[in-house]
Amino acid sequence: MSTRRIGLWLIGACGGVGTTAALGLAALRRGVGETTSLVTALPMFDALHLDAPADFVVGGHEIRRSGFRQTVRELQKRSSIFEPDLATACQDDLESWEANIRPGTLLNSGPSIARLADRSDLKTSDTAREAIEHLQADLRDFRERHRLDQVVVVNVSSTEPPFETNEIHESLERLKPELDRRQAPLPASSLYAWAALDLGLPYINFTPSLGASTPALLELAEQRRAVTAGKDGKTGETLMKSVLAPMFALRNWQLLSWVGHNIFGNRDGQVLDDPTNKASKIRTKDQVVSSIVGYKPQTLVSIEYIDSLDDWKTAWNHIHFKGFLGTKMTLQFIWQGCDSILAAPLVLDLARLALLSQRRGEVGILSHLACFFKNPMGVTEHDFFKQFAMLERYVGEPAA
Amino acid sequence: MSTRRIGLWLIGACGGVGTTAALGLAALRRGVGETTSLVTALPMFDALHLDAPADFVVGGHEIRRSGFRQTVRELQKRSSIFEPDLATACQDDLESWEANIRPGTLLNSGPSIARLADRSDLKTSDTAREAIEHLQADLRDFRERHRLDQVVVVNVSSTEPPFETNEIHESLERLKPELDRRQAPLPASSLYAWAALDLGLPYINFTPSLGASTPALLELAEQRRAVTAGKDGKTGETLMKSVLAPMFALRNWQLLSWVGHNIFGNRDGQVLDDPTNKASKIRTKDQVVSSIVGYKPQTLVSIEYIDSLDDWKTAWNHIHFKGFLGTKMTLQFIWQGCDSILAAPLVLDLARLALLSQRRGEVGILSHLACFFKNPMGVTEHDFFKQFAMLERYVGEPAA
Amino acid sequence: MSTRRIGLWLIGACGGVGTTAALGLAALRRGVGETTSLVTALPMFDALHLDAPADFVVGGHEIRRSGFRQTVRELQKRSSIFEPDLATACQDDLESWEANIRPGTLLNSGPSIARLADRSDLKTSDTAREAIEHLQADLRDFRERHRLDQVVVVNVSSTEPPFETNEIHESLERLKPELDRRQAPLPASSLYAWAALDLGLPYINFTPSLGASTPALLELAEQRRAVTAGKDGKTGETLMKSVLAPMFALRNWQLLSWVGHNIFGNRDGQVLDDPTNKASKIRTKDQVVSSIVGYKPQTLVSIEYIDSLDDWKTAWNHIHFKGFLGTKMTLQFIWQGCDSILAAPLVLDLARLALLSQRRGEVGILSHLACFFKNPMGVTEHDFFKQFAMLERYVGEPAA
Amino acid sequence: MSTRRIGLWLIGACGGVGTTAALGLAALRRGVGETTSLVTALPMFDALHLDAPADFVVGGHEIRRSGFRQTVRELQKRSSIFEPDLATACQDDLESWEANIRPGTLLNSGPSIARLADRSDLKTSDTAREAIEHLQADLRDFRERHRLDQVVVVNVSSTEPPFETNEIHESLERLKPELDRRQAPLPASSLYAWAALDLGLPYINFTPSLGASTPALLELAEQRRAVTAGKDGKTGETLMKSVLAPMFALRNWQLLSWVGHNIFGNRDGQVLDDPTNKASKIRTKDQVVSSIVGYKPQTLVSIEYIDSLDDWKTAWNHIHFKGFLGTKMTLQFIWQGCDSILAAPLVLDLARLALLSQRRGEVGILSHLACFFKNPMGVTEHDFFKQFAMLERYVGEPAA
Repeated sequence: MSTRRIGLWLIGACGGVGTTAALGLAALRRGVGETTSLVTALPMFDALHLDAPADFVVGGHEIRRSGFRQTVRELQKRSSIFEPDLATACQDDLESWEANIRPGTLLNSGPSIARLADRSDLKTSDTAREAIEHLQADLRDFRERHRLDQVVVVNVSSTEPPFETNEIHESLERLKPELDRRQAPLPASSLYAWAALDLGLPYINFTPSLGASTPALLELAEQRRAVTAGKDGKTGETLMKSVLAPMFALRNWQLLSWVGHNIFGNRDGQVLDDPTNKASKIRTKDQVVSSIVGYKPQTLVSIEYIDSLDDWKTAWNHIHFKGFLGTKMTLQFIWQGCDSILAAPLVLDLARLALLSQRRGEVGILSHLACFFKNPMGVTEHDFFKQFAMLERYVGEPAA
Repeated sequence: MSTRRIGLWLIGACGGVGTTAALGLAALRRGVGETTSLVTALPMFDALHLDAPADFVVGGHEIRRSGFRQTVRELQKRSSIFEPDLATACQDDLESWEANIRPGTLLNSGPSIARLADRSDLKTSDTAREAIEHLQADLRDFRERHRLDQVVVVNVSSTEPPFETNEIHESLERLKPELDRRQAPLPASSLYAWAALDLGLPYINFTPSLGASTPALLELAEQRRAVTAGKDGKTGETLMKSVLAPMFALRNWQLLSWVGHNIFGNRDGQVLDDPTNKASKIRTKDQVVSSIVGYKPQTLVSIEYIDSLDDWKTAWNHIHFKGFLGTKMTLQFIWQGCDSILAAPLVLDLARLALLSQRRGEVGILSHLACFFKNPMGVTEHDFFKQFAMLERYVGEPAA
Repeated sequence: MSTRRIGLWLIGACGGVGTTAALGLAALRRGVGETTSLVTALPMFDALHLDAPADFVVGGHEIRRSGFRQTVRELQKRSSIFEPDLATACQDDLESWEANIRPGTLLNSGPSIARLADRSDLKTSDTAREAIEHLQADLRDFRERHRLDQVVVVNVSSTEPPFETNEIHESLERLKPELDRRQAPLPASSLYAWAALDLGLPYINFTPSLGASTPALLELAEQRRAVTAGKDGKTGETLMKSVLAPMFALRNWQLLSWVGHNIFGNRDGQVLDDPTNKASKIRTKDQVVSSIVGYKPQTLVSIEYIDSLDDWKTAWNHIHFKGFLGTKMTLQFIWQGCDSILAAPLVLDLARLALLSQRRGEVGILSHLACFFKNPMGVTEHDFFKQFAMLERYVGEPAA
Repeated sequence: MSTRRIGLWLIGACGGVGTTAALGLAALRRGVGETTSLVTALPMFDALHLDAPADFVVGGHEIRRSGFRQTVRELQKRSSIFEPDLATACQDDLESWEANIRPGTLLNSGPSIARLADRSDLKTSDTAREAIEHLQADLRDFRERHRLDQVVVVNVSSTEPPFETNEIHESLERLKPELDRRQAPLPASSLYAWAALDLGLPYINFTPSLGASTPALLELAEQRRAVTAGKDGKTGETLMKSVLAPMFALRNWQLLSWVGHNIFGNRDGQVLDDPTNKASKIRTKDQVVSSIVGYKPQTLVSIEYIDSLDDWKTAWNHIHFKGFLGTKMTLQFIWQGCDSILAAPLVLDLARLALLSQRRGEVGILSHLACFFKNPMGVTEHDFFKQFAMLERYVGEPAA
């Protein structure tokens, strides 16, 4: 049907999420995988003719030596996912896509991420501008070598420490001259975002890092007529919060406390074990409930690295609420999900929907994608079902 | 504000749910209780000027000797609910309302319910018509003695065994002559429903029993211009199902199995320990998930009587689902709620909303109340949020 | 060290437990597996010089066409266990051991087990004696062809329906003549037990089926100077009960209720879905707690077949207990274990310990093996730690 | 039987634990409470003729204005414990015992505890010696006014911050002269311990604070022929660890990680919300598992203050372990217990057993009481059942 050629460029490509997205694309191309858990495979999207798996070529930036095939083997061994037959059928695609991996930048990525870097070909840049130019050269090369009609950039790398913005990030005019200073004015995630948006490419931030979430970068997106969406894919515990909190609100139960403990053991978890990186994550996880119910129950969110769990994130939530005549009651849930498996299909969904928006000539924040994010850019609504209704209105079709 | 006088007539009045509803009304009248968990206390209902707690007088049918005050004491002692101060402040109201309790009927209520009956003044009826006439005499007497503008009837009694309907229940014409036969053609719950609807009174079925859920009784409601709603209050586990199943559908995860085990120890539980009575309950609980996701995962629902739990219902649900690339993941939840405390505010909500509909001249099934029921009459939608949207449309206001 | 040659004969050989036991032996022989979860690998057993994995040859009876290698593949695919490298390294051993599989008997095994049988070479026997003779011929052939010093027989087949014994099972003299009648006086599990004990071989019953648990068969064991132990391997939920109940007893907390719901989806589960087979299982699971605390709290045990869980058994237990001054408190646990993985090492432990006893000239029930069984033959103690102390006394060494 | 008069002196008397212990004694005296959860009510202790509840008079030190009756009311209202009838029957005893409460000392108790102090009659002491003399005057006065044969002192106050000891705490000779310095050389808990032991009174430390756990204070105990035991009552999560870890050891499963999250909302929790005080607690909770299994799995223990939970401590534990052939499996438990209710009976048990030891002429650490403590003084064994066996050997009777 489609004869478009599409590039999916992943930042942090060979981590669990990027690798699973690549493997998933390959499996769908080869007919050995199902579309289960691809939101865009729901019938409501049929009429949009989104890009098919067969249209995609994968590339990306990576600071580690690892490749897709090695990460697949690690996930098989440590996390018991990916059936051998499926993985085998996709080896050729993964091998050819590995040739599209480029080293990326460590500039302002923070010490925990820098510690992971082990590629010998990582370029050091003295200024933000220099780093951006390197990144853009990689993107242009990818587009040209594969004669791609569109390229979408998705950040699936590990979480950076929080980055405090100030008045220089308020406008493009203020920020631009800072790019040439020795002290880079943006964290790594925003350098990647700049590189993409400045080339007019759709940029999706699947992480809680800063990315394009400053007025200056949004101005750049407008100027280059690029689309963007983020931040932080809503994959598990926070999705549950955004589904359950509306129930408490509509039943007029009073939330007393909501405690969430998360344990997991993948590389992302190792980075989050650094308290400064963790702070970014907890910030986006902790606002959802209060925002939905309209008041602030006592909340607690912890994320802890437990090596033996590998990619399996277990979340225990204890929700204490007051019902009629002062009676306190309890709901607890235990979520046992595999992080990469949860995230990867959403990455493909977001890529497909951003590519459509780009073709349709939309510009700036894609607020109809709020249901995919813990902390949706440009949207204050956290109720999952109200967010999904925004997507239904965009598509012009109800889900069922 | 309002000078209406309202009667709330409870079938199974002195059980946990009826007693908590009565106590709640008294507490709200006396200013010692809060409106937490009354849905109709949400701001979206403000403009409707629903009946205030102070407008209500309570009465009802009961087959056991117990009174509101005794049940309050039992719930305090066995289930550790109701603060002593609150209960004390409401003693006078409860005492005066106990004077409005009448014996009710055991005709066709099944052996497990009949075993609970210990009132010496229970009338035996030879035919359905005779039973209905007794019940109606009680209702008329209640209305007249208290000079009530409106009376709403709510069934909060224990669950009957399933009752198989046939062609005689398809039309009023066919059913009416059967009322005079020795073999009553309706279960007890439907006799109460008939009594109410035939007097033009709103009838709410908070239980899974048959009640008004047959074409013949709905025809009667139309004829008498009465409103009705049911069946089976959606208080805990099933509410959770109707909240969570849409998440699985909209994320395109494939439900593999959904197992729900419920344990509790109140009188309702004792009755449900009779396998025939339990069958009614499980039937309404087991259809929700399939109806929402559009296919049939393996489901299992059990309800077991565990004496020590008293009115505290604990539900463990194990939800097994398939995500991307065939990976199976698990969500479990544990719900620990107090049955009477969960149900009673919904009884008050339903009474208030049915009274409004009656005043507005509506007739027949109140389908906008679907969000209150496990098995909503006249509605196939089980998604809690879509059901709530029906209520919002009726009210003309979003919840927030 | 040892130059003994040992045969492990498994009844129900190619099910999950038997296959995992065979794979485990092969992996230990090949040095690709660890001794984790082999009780007999604890240092306390070092001085006993138990038979080493390299000494074993595996064979067994099986009513299905399946072989070890096929079951390994099924468990890999459906239950995500066994790393590919480990399984590959063991293929040759499994293949050669498959040649030792013989068809077994269906006589008196009940309809649910009979339905699983699909081998074309299953022999039908008219009498118990005929069946026993077939089974013994297989055992003798195995011993001779492999020139084995000892053969131990372990029943790891699916659970039979309960079999009611009567006075003919009280003595060998009464039972023997019945073996020639048309109506076999023993269930299949006891025919296998007879076959083994009559040849003087150690017989271990890892299932709740009758096996050797009647006076007549114990008499046979004495006569033939054979050892035996059983019944029903204590692998998960029941192990937990036998560990936790002593805590409640020694803290003088009063158990009010203990509810256990078990769900799993392997072949054993399919057989247990037959209510008569399930009855055998629940009977042995439900006595443990009362026996330890010395009174009867309300207990509930369910076992349900949930296809999607495959070999992963999930047990939710809700324990309600009374503490000081009448306060009720709750302990819940959720056990997620893989059935074959839990059971197989215990099979190897039991085989090694029974072989030792045989060599030492012991005869009859090996009561020091009580800690391995849900329903230990000849022992009323269910407290796991007291049972383990019996094993320590036998070995003459504390565990640590 | 006994005509001894016994004084129970509680440090932190009017907190939840002290109050529940006092109420429990009163209830048992009055015959309105049961002995459930008193370990010393097990039959194995019958022959020891321990002191009966009727023999006890209660007094204690307290830094807050609260009395037993006020704390009872607070626990009733906030935590829904203590039936009204039981509490009413004990009012007179509680009132008379309140007259025995004295203000205590804040010297070196740390800022979080000092913040709770609101009595106007708290004495400030310039030196440790001065504080000790005040405390001893209170103890002597209590003994004399009530003509008591024995007085036992139990520390049930909030947890202090960790106190670093040094060489001056190694001997009585080194420590004694320091008592007169401006800078007190001991934390408050040790001043109370000194006061008791120096008078020859049994001293029990139910908290993780330092108390008598230094060579110098143990020397004092020997000198004064006093007995002592501690530290930190083993009431819930840690008890579970000491019960479950032996199972993992004896089944030869390899513990990979053990995560424990604790949430609760009583005053003790508020004090533990101070990270320095919390450090004391976590230290004692985190060593149990490794000590039992003999290696160090990854462990994580958190304790968080969640206001709405009041005295109900909820602990979620996630235990990840490796079974046969490398397969990872999971056990989770959720413990929902009421802290005061769990602790108070153990306080009474310890008091009774320490009084017996004193009468028998024992001196120093009572190591047979290890099963009552998270961090037993003088004992390295953490396995609950081995600890209990020590108590059985002391008593000369098995539990059953």
